[in-house]
Amino acid sequence: MPATSMEQLVSLCKRRGFIFQNADIYGGFQGLYDFGPLGVELKNNLKAAWWRAMVYERDDVEGVDCAILTHRKVLHYSGHEDTFSDPMVDCKDCKCRMRADTLKDGKCSECGSTNLTEIRQFNLMFKTNVGPIDDGESFGYLRPETAQAIFVNFKNVVDSTSRKVPFGIAQMGKSFRNEITPRNFIFRVREFEQMELEFFVEPGTDLEWHEKWKEARLKWWQEQGLSMENIKPVAIPKEDLAHYSKATYDIYYKFPHGLEELEGIADRTDYDLANHSKNQSEFKISAHVHDKNVDSNSKLALYDEEKKEWFIPFVIEPSAGVERGVLAVLTEAYTEEKLENGNERIVLKLKKHLAPIKVAVIPLKRNNEQIMAIAHKIKKDLLKLGIGRVSLEDSGNIGKAYRRHDEVGTPICVTVDFETIEAEPASVTIRDRDTMRQHRVNLIDLPDYVKEFFS
Amino acid sequence: MPATSMEQLVSLCKRRGFIFQNADIYGGFQGLYDFGPLGVELKNNLKAAWWRAMVYERDDVEGVDCAILTHRKVLHYSGHEDTFSDPMVDCKDCKCRMRADTLKDGKCSECGSTNLTEIRQFNLMFKTNVGPIDDGESFGYLRPETAQAIFVNFKNVVDSTSRKVPFGIAQMGKSFRNEITPRNFIFRVREFEQMELEFFVEPGTDLEWHEKWKEARLKWWQEQGLSMENIKPVAIPKEDLAHYSKATYDIYYKFPHGLEELEGIADRTDYDLANHSKNQSEFKISAHVHDKNVDSNSKLALYDEEKKEWFIPFVIEPSAGVERGVLAVLTEAYTEEKLENGNERIVLKLKKHLAPIKVAVIPLKRNNEQIMAIAHKIKKDLLKLGIGRVSLEDSGNIGKAYRRHDEVGTPICVTVDFETIEAEPASVTIRDRDTMRQHRVNLIDLPDYVKEFFS
Repeated sequence: MPATSMEQLVSLCKRRGFIFQNADIYGGFQGLYDFGPLGVELKNNLKAAWWRAMVYERDDVEGVDCAILTHRKVLHYSGHEDTFSDPMVDCKDCKCRMRADTLKDGKCSECGSTNLTEIRQFNLMFKTNVGPIDDGESFGYLRPETAQAIFVNFKNVVDSTSRKVPFGIAQMGKSFRNEITPRNFIFRVREFEQMELEFFVEPGTDLEWHEKWKEARLKWWQEQGLSMENIKPVAIPKEDLAHYSKATYDIYYKFPHGLEELEGIADRTDYDLANHSKNQSEFKISAHVHDKNVDSNSKLALYDEEKKEWFIPFVIEPSAGVERGVLAVLTEAYTEEKLENGNERIVLKLKKHLAPIKVAVIPLKRNNEQIMAIAHKIKKDLLKLGIGRVSLEDSGNIGKAYRRHDEVGTPICVTVDFETIEAEPASVTIRDRDTMRQHRVNLIDLPDYVKEFFS
Repeated sequence: MPATSMEQLVSLCKRRGFIFQNADIYGGFQGLYDFGPLGVELKNNLKAAWWRAMVYERDDVEGVDCAILTHRKVLHYSGHEDTFSDPMVDCKDCKCRMRADTLKDGKCSECGSTNLTEIRQFNLMFKTNVGPIDDGESFGYLRPETAQAIFVNFKNVVDSTSRKVPFGIAQMGKSFRNEITPRNFIFRVREFEQMELEFFVEPGTDLEWHEKWKEARLKWWQEQGLSMENIKPVAIPKEDLAHYSKATYDIYYKFPHGLEELEGIADRTDYDLANHSKNQSEFKISAHVHDKNVDSNSKLALYDEEKKEWFIPFVIEPSAGVERGVLAVLTEAYTEEKLENGNERIVLKLKKHLAPIKVAVIPLKRNNEQIMAIAHKIKKDLLKLGIGRVSLEDSGNIGKAYRRHDEVGTPICVTVDFETIEAEPASVTIRDRDTMRQHRVNLIDLPDYVKEFFS
């Protein structure tokens, strides 16, 4: 059974070194989290799985990694300067500031007062001065999404790779939103990572690709261990669509705090490329352009050899949050089990490819040179398999080590004991995380066994 | 021979999709660059090599990945608010602003005027308002280095992993410095990535560890393909050391624009942990503390079981720049060759593990179904080896494809031709990037051949 409360996850994450509150020695910095020794591996494994599925395994996608600091004009023409905001109110009694759409029956969510200010729009973008001149005009933004950097690099990618539609550009990386009220652990935070694909298609084929991408993304989330019982794809009703979108699926996941968005898959039509393109009047543009572009020096369009005309591709955007992915994967994997002997254990039943530590090598005695030497050699040999982190434990307490590795999701433990150095042929104990069963494997067969286990 | 001018690299990087000027469709955003389809792979491969060497292959290092937005108090107590600045002057004639230490004989580096303002200190940190209240006090900084986040998480990591000295905490990620005059392509930029290790040791063993880390880091850079002829480690003279440092090695590399810093390895003593610790008077502190800490809620110290006392570890910090690493690797790998037939070629002689594309699979005819089917199957089989990106080319021009893959450093091309589908046993052509030699390998042996080639 998955985690039922956020507290279970927060506690495990801090105790075992997955996720820490940012700046907690100074009382914490709200809406920001740090990934610890195990969290960084889990997060990187999830990102690697996405990159592999989106870039390596396909023949029609290129990757990029663009700057976070963003030129003002990019976010002007994208529409973010004018529209990327949340409605905000202040409570005149308790002085707290909150999102207007979170008010309960028009009352302050902190103190219950109805003595509130008018609602005003609060732009969620972080602004910072760039360069040595601080005149109020020389600023940039921290990107609120990775997508815009893909659009403004459209021509660079096409020119350097000779791509034709359909093709996509993928990017993973940090984005920043100055949330009025960050909450629910790493679910709604001010700094987060996105995994975004902008998939460019011929206009008219977009709805078909939209369906394909919904299916592909649902399949991918299942491969990360999420059960379809906890996932709900929702087609957003026409009247609720964002102004740039012709169709959107939101993929919801049953988080401990409720059914909430994990990924959005939008048909953004030609809205973005058209907005960043010069000479907009030369094209048939389907979307409503935000502002006539008098600054861009490029036509973000492709030439149709058959029709002998330039056209602006439509784009399908599957956009997922990394932290939300990590939270969903942790929620699903978290398991409290009652054992036959009456004891209880917590075990993280993560998919093998996501586990922060793939194999824990445990020498039974840390002051036995022979045992330690074999343990070191095993670690070295297993690392060569390229499966990820292999850790050498030397806490000297085997029971504690198993308990710890259950809690952090290590698929197998390899124990080097006295039988390893005394019996012939040399063998080690393998302990399986999920079944807790133990069996012996000959030392000579160990790399092949582990390779097979993770393949 | 390595690249001799930055222009050679800038041109190749744009043409082939390694690195683009940020926001170039809006005239560019100075000091910022975007990594294109090949650049992102090269950069990620370099980072993966670092992580592997620093975290996976050692038994004494943990990794973390912390937020970029940084609490003001962290950078107050670290000393950055007061001291992280460059000297700046304005030219009263041409109105340009520049670093005072770049003036040529006291004259403006733009127009040659001597009509300059007084020198003043310019803090290099980017500041941004965090949260919905914009009162001039609710701001944070974009971190100017990843190191401080490691120090403030010291206790979190120790508590969750039970580490004792010597041990290290490694982090890779973006840092931001508002450089007065960014220059030399990706060498001096406003947004960049760092690979930093903070290695905590017992006071008194620090100088020994400092030497060890210098050797380890030199060896690592050689493994990335840098020749020792182009690397120069320099011990910084005592009088030039930063105030927090007891000893520093700078590793210089012969970039196209000159001998410049690639990595710094500093003995930072107990400066950082002491500065972020509460109850500072309880410890023997070696460094000069920047400011008495009245805000921290944690003792950043370890307990010495033998001496029965708390102590603050010393720290050795090997800190390398990712973009500088990429630039050094590109500089070293860039080769213009005169061929026997009189033609010339550009080839990037990158180490195999750094090459953006490991294998290019090239079907000789893209409209031959049988050839295409085999090419697709080869790509799929080779991907399973987990060696990185394998690309399927279908430009249909074999000569052009080889030329392109020389320029981007692809170690081998696998060509599927008519002999593949007509002769028995089925075989493919392997072309080697460096020797340009071609030979045939049986299809059935290909995965083993490729695996061996990259191991």
